[in-house]
Amino acid sequence: MENPAPRPTYTPKTAADGVIEALQILEGRWKMTILFHLFDKGTLRFSELSRAIPDVSEKMLIQQLKKLEQDGIVARVVYPQVPPKVEYSLTPVGQALCPALDALLFWAEQWKQVLVESNS
Amino acid sequence: MENPAPRPTYTPKTAADGVIEALQILEGRWKMTILFHLFDKGTLRFSELSRAIPDVSEKMLIQQLKKLEQDGIVARVVYPQVPPKVEYSLTPVGQALCPALDALLFWAEQWKQVLVESNS
Repeated sequence: MENPAPRPTYTPKTAADGVIEALQILEGRWKMTILFHLFDKGTLRFSELSRAIPDVSEKMLIQQLKKLEQDGIVARVVYPQVPPKVEYSLTPVGQALCPALDALLFWAEQWKQVLVESNS
Repeated sequence: MENPAPRPTYTPKTAADGVIEALQILEGRWKMTILFHLFDKGTLRFSELSRAIPDVSEKMLIQQLKKLEQDGIVARVVYPQVPPKVEYSLTPVGQALCPALDALLFWAEQWKQVLVESNS
């Protein structure tokens, strides 16, 4: 990330494929929620994440965190103490998702405003 | 869009829900490709879109364009001539999607670069 490569040239097809590929990494109901909790708090223990998202089972939360870790988006640090402390945070590339997701959120706001205006 | 409302306050849950809702509008294999063609060219006739995306059937293309039109993202203009000319373009809120999708594409580039670096 220190020496960003020049941006590739896209055709409409390769651009659409690139966005779809990026979205597949975030697929499923819980990953997005986990990400926004980590954007918000920076670092969270497993128990804190579990309490913050009461609708998700522990098993599902562990699964989703493992996938995000495998994809290099979430970092997991285990502190060797008794009982072991496990903390989750975003990697730099995970943090880089924040502006992209915020751009989508901002767009959703504009879209809803247009819908309201066109129905009034 | 002329008088943007102040941005709402989000919790991690409402932010995640907002992004997921925005993504549902773009769901499916073809909408993203249609959008990038319209970002690229501005306005396209049905026959031009159909030729530009040879993998999609005419029926599916009509369906997807209709959904994008219903969601206020694509504008369809019919010119009363023989044979009728039908042109598709992005509405202003459809155009506003461009920076959000580009932010995701830019993120996907960074993500791939990190993967390459971590495997080398």
